[in-house]
Formats: sequence, C-alpha cells, structure tokens
Amino acid sequence: MEKYEIGLIPGPVKIPEEIRRVWLNDFASSDLEDEFFALYHENQVLIQKLLRTKNNVVITSGEAMSILWASLKCTLKPGEKILAVSSGLFGSGFADMARAIGAYAETCEFPYDEVPEPEKVYEHAKKFRPKVITAVHCETPSGTLTPCLAEIGKIAREVEALFVVDFVSSAGGVELDVDACKIDIGLLGSQKVLSLTPSISISTISPHAWQIINDVNYSGYEAFADWREVPEKKFMPYTHDWHSMKALNISLENIMNEGIDGACARHSEAAKLCRDLGREIGLELFPKSEEICSPTVTAFYVPEKFTWENFNERLRARGLAVGGNYGSLAGKVFRIGHMGSQADSDLVRRGMKIIREVLA
Amino acid sequence: MEKYEIGLIPGPVKIPEEIRRVWLNDFASSDLEDEFFALYHENQVLIQKLLRTKNNVVITSGEAMSILWASLKCTLKPGEKILAVSSGLFGSGFADMARAIGAYAETCEFPYDEVPEPEKVYEHAKKFRPKVITAVHCETPSGTLTPCLAEIGKIAREVEALFVVDFVSSAGGVELDVDACKIDIGLLGSQKVLSLTPSISISTISPHAWQIINDVNYSGYEAFADWREVPEKKFMPYTHDWHSMKALNISLENIMNEGIDGACARHSEAAKLCRDLGREIGLELFPKSEEICSPTVTAFYVPEKFTWENFNERLRARGLAVGGNYGSLAGKVFRIGHMGSQADSDLVRRGMKIIREVLA
Repeated sequence: MEKYEIGLIPGPVKIPEEIRRVWLNDFASSDLEDEFFALYHENQVLIQKLLRTKNNVVITSGEAMSILWASLKCTLKPGEKILAVSSGLFGSGFADMARAIGAYAETCEFPYDEVPEPEKVYEHAKKFRPKVITAVHCETPSGTLTPCLAEIGKIAREVEALFVVDFVSSAGGVELDVDACKIDIGLLGSQKVLSLTPSISISTISPHAWQIINDVNYSGYEAFADWREVPEKKFMPYTHDWHSMKALNISLENIMNEGIDGACARHSEAAKLCRDLGREIGLELFPKSEEICSPTVTAFYVPEKFTWENFNERLRARGLAVGGNYGSLAGKVFRIGHMGSQADSDLVRRGMKIIREVLA
Repeated sequence: MEKYEIGLIPGPVKIPEEIRRVWLNDFASSDLEDEFFALYHENQVLIQKLLRTKNNVVITSGEAMSILWASLKCTLKPGEKILAVSSGLFGSGFADMARAIGAYAETCEFPYDEVPEPEKVYEHAKKFRPKVITAVHCETPSGTLTPCLAEIGKIAREVEALFVVDFVSSAGGVELDVDACKIDIGLLGSQKVLSLTPSISISTISPHAWQIINDVNYSGYEAFADWREVPEKKFMPYTHDWHSMKALNISLENIMNEGIDGACARHSEAAKLCRDLGREIGLELFPKSEEICSPTVTAFYVPEKFTWENFNERLRARGLAVGGNYGSLAGKVFRIGHMGSQADSDLVRRGMKIIREVLA
C-alpha cells in the first residue's frame, strides 16, 4: 500500500504534515546562501542540546547507513582492530562492515534478547586492545535498549579506544547524554524519532575522533573530514538538501518545545502501554525482561498460531502496518514502532486493538 | 536569501511547485511496499527511454557526488589505472578522486574553454592502457558540452577500458544516447535538468560494468552491487526516499509528455537566447566557440569593470541570482543556468535584462 491507516512501523515513521509542508518552500541554493549556513548552525546547536554534548555536529545528506559506514571508514585503516559490542543485528553489522573494509573485527556477543554486560566487554577490550569500540543504543530489530553506554564509554577510554555509538533509533525519544557516555562518534538517523524523510543524517564527533579522522584521511561521499567547519567556511563537499535541513529544524524545535524530558516520557508511556496491552492479549515479549525494552520500539514473538506472513496479512487487511524482522529474527519476531510521531498512546491503543481482534 | 526572484543558478535549479507538492503525500515505508518497488521500476524504464539505453538503471539516495565516488570505488582497486579526459574542473576531479582512493590516474587535459579532441585521447589511451576512462558531458563550471562522447566511447572499447561518463548536468536537456556512446557507467544528478531536490542520484550500468563491479567487490554506502536487482528482490541496502522517487517519476513523465526532442529544443533555444542577448549587451563567452557551449548552462567572463563580488551584489540587489565559479575560474567566469525548469526563454530574457541594466 502507499499509505498506512495505522502506521506502527519502527521507521520510517509517519512524517507529520507540518514537516511535509516544508517542501512547499521554494528554497534558493544551499551552496550559496548565508541563510542556509545559519540554519545548519542552528541545527548543530539544537542537536548538541538534545544529545547533551559539546562535540561537533555534522549533518550530511543521505540515509543513516551513510554515517554508519562513515564512522568505520573514517577511523579504521586496513588491518586495524575494532571490537563490536553486539546484542543484535546492528551490533554484529558493525563487525561485518568493518571486515568488508579490511579491518580486523571481533564481536563481544550477547544474545539478541539480552543487552551487553559491561564486565564481559571490559575483559574482551582489555585483551583485544581495539582502536575502535562500537555499540548500538537501541537494537531496533530486537526492541532492546542498551542501558550501559556510560560503562562501555568508560571502558573505551581506559583501553584508549574510540567509542562509536549507533543511536539511530533512540535519540530524541530516550534520555541520552553523549558527553557523560564519552561517545566519540554518535550516529543519528532522520526517519526514526525525528520523523523526517530518510534523507539526512546526523553525527556527533569529539575532538579526539577528529584527530583520528584526520590521521586516517579517508576520501569519499562518506568522508567526515570536509564537514568539520561547514558554517564557518560556508563550503560543503556537495549540494545540501535545504528542505531536509529545514524539516530537521522544525522537528528539533518541536522536541525542544515539548521538552526533552516530555518527549522521553511520551515515548516511555507509549512503550509501557504497548507492553501492557500486549501482555493482556497474550503476546510474548521478545526481550528477556521489560527493563531492557526500548521506549521507541517493542518486539513481540509472532503468535504461535500464525506465520508472520499470515499474521501480517490479517493486520494489514484491518489497516495496521507493523514491522517484520530480519536475519535470524525473520518470521519469528515482529515489532511495534512507537517512536517520534508514533509515540502516541492513542495510536498504540488503536494498533493493539486490531492485534487483539486478529488474535481473537 | 532564502528564495530567488529570478533564479538562474546552474543547479540546484528552481523546483517546480508540482514537484514540491509530492511531499504532501503521507507515504508508507519504502522498505516494505510493492507500490514503491513498482515506482522504482517505472523510473528505471523511463530513464532507459530518456537516455536511450538498455543498461540497468540504479537509483540511490544522496547527492550526485555519491555516484561520482561510486563509479570509481566500485571499478578500481588500488594501483589500477584510470585516464580522466578533462577539459574542466569535474574532468580533473575524477583524477583527483581516483588518486585519493589509491588508483593510478593520468589526465588527458584540454583547456577549460575548449573540449576534448578524440585524437589526443586515443593516443593517450593506447599508450596508457587504463582500466577506466572517464569523461564529463557538460562541464558546468565552463559551460561547455563535450560533443565527442561517442568517439571516446569507441576508443574505450578499443583499449578495453570501462567508459564512465558524468552527464549530471546535461541529460534530459541535451540529446544523449548512452548505448550509441558505449557508456558503461553513466551518472545523472537530480537538482539539474530534472529540477528535483539534491536527494537522489541515477546511474546507468552496463553488463560489462556489472562484471567489473562484482570483481572489485567494493563495500560501502556508495556500493552499486546491492542495487542490481532492487525491484526483483524487493530489497535495498537502506531505506529509500519515497518522496524523492515519486518526484523523479513526475519529472520524467513531464519530459516524456513534452517529448525528449521538445525538451532538448527548449534548452537549445534558451541557451541560444542567452548567448545572443549576452553578445548584444557586450558579454564575452568563456567557451572558445558557440559550437561547444552547453544548452544547459552559459559561462561568460565577468565584465571587466566589475569584480565578481561587486557584479553579483548588483545583480542580487535586483533579484537575480546567477552562478559564480570555482578553482581557477573563480572570480573570472560567471554562469547562467538555463536547465530544467529554468530552460525558459522568458526567464532568461528577464535575467539578461537585469544584467543589461547593471552593465549600463
């Protein structure tokens, strides 16, 4: 279908009309106008506030995979070591991507329905001595939230590794303090909590990360280097997308107006409601415990009496779209995405009502 | 300024309201819906028609620099040889980019106000035996159009090199036959003739290019490999931008409705008018002759009695935005972009009237 009646996909989420109307603007060239660079800078400051960081913010064009690749390509030379802390598909994905670019990767693995334990990460990191440690804040496919980013950040400092964190599907809906967690490179997508088109990506980069990036000196579309001083130099490696930049501004302003705490509370409430209603109607949570469930996405086992395809077909026939899964979770686990515009208790209630009907 | 009264920038060009209104759609997830993959396929077919090719078409998310990088990264391993045919900034840019990724690049250079001569390219290619030969159809900074793509394509075949062509700012406004020119990888941007946001990029890829791409086996956001069978496999390496895909569809349909010949004639007329009016008011063309001027962009020397900054300020004070320049042409050559929505004789006349006033 082209449009969801009740959309609870864990990204891309529903883009509010206010955001979509940004495209009605007849913007000038982003390469040339001071107003564009001022907007870019305004977004940098808002992101710093949202993520509680003094680190530099880089806003690039393209889907979030572009910055996941960038975080590895800009920091690792062939043969250099990376430890991917993994309790899910994206966690292991970092190791796969690193290997594909010739780095030497090990994973510190935990079951997909659990979250990383800092002790095991510490042991592994001390022995392995990686140049980079990666972690994933919200494992969207598993519906889990890693609570120990600060601990892993401390470990990274101790073993002198760069700490790279994918918070693509958490930041904005979950309390996150980039500086307290000592995150050197933080990665945020647009089509999740920010409820934008998948056309813009946001990275936070620490001074230490900039040193490594300069040293590695990677070239390509994913290269961070040329983005270090965009508002100051008024120069970018390619023509930016003014509409997406403006849409990001509105999304960030909306979060600030609601208050970061308010936005996080709204996500937690929607998530709790989803879990509560799920329990009521007999759904089984995929994560081992409620404590590690993400406030942005809830993963349930596909009910036993259905195949995923059959279940999904019935939900869709009633206007509800939820997320399926990938890799080893495909067919077994489905997901309710209550992030950004979808972190809405009424919407969750409507969606869960349909699931109840299908299960009845 | 945020908006141009009279916009004649050579890209990003003015986005027609019909295109901008696409974003009012509340689209579903591009990862999941058959309608998205059908739209993707429809665009592939329209692009094949527009560019007269049977080659596979790949439509990715991100600005056109992403596919310029992709064309090199996916076809060259470190140390492999590339010959960049260059009569301008983008021509030489290919060599710079290739060197940055460890390839061995030579340029077959021509003055920026001229176009490549096939004889010289042939001599160079025969001696150098490159794996890849690159060329640029329209050198936007110089306002020139390379007329000898077919000849260079023939040379590439003879020396068994892959032929990569940047037609980012020409295709759609200039007659182009990808298959007759034996173009293995062709690169088209969205914010030029297609008059879209700079959020989507289009590549044509020949069977021979796919062989090389498979052999090189490059990984990253710029990797072409995973895009080979998108509508067939209904899988993409990242979430695509449905709005941009739909906007592309409307832009291509509009060209088809006008007719490719009609669109090309409209560009030629606007360009001729621009040159004629320029001559009338005493502007000097940058290209050595009218024959090599691009139908999409006209480059004039900055009039002697002005600095570029001073001239530009006066034009802008009257509501006209034109393009400045880069590299060795900065401050010396300015450009009128009459491509896509701006290939409009009335608009060109209004713009040139303002230049006449400023020169008076």
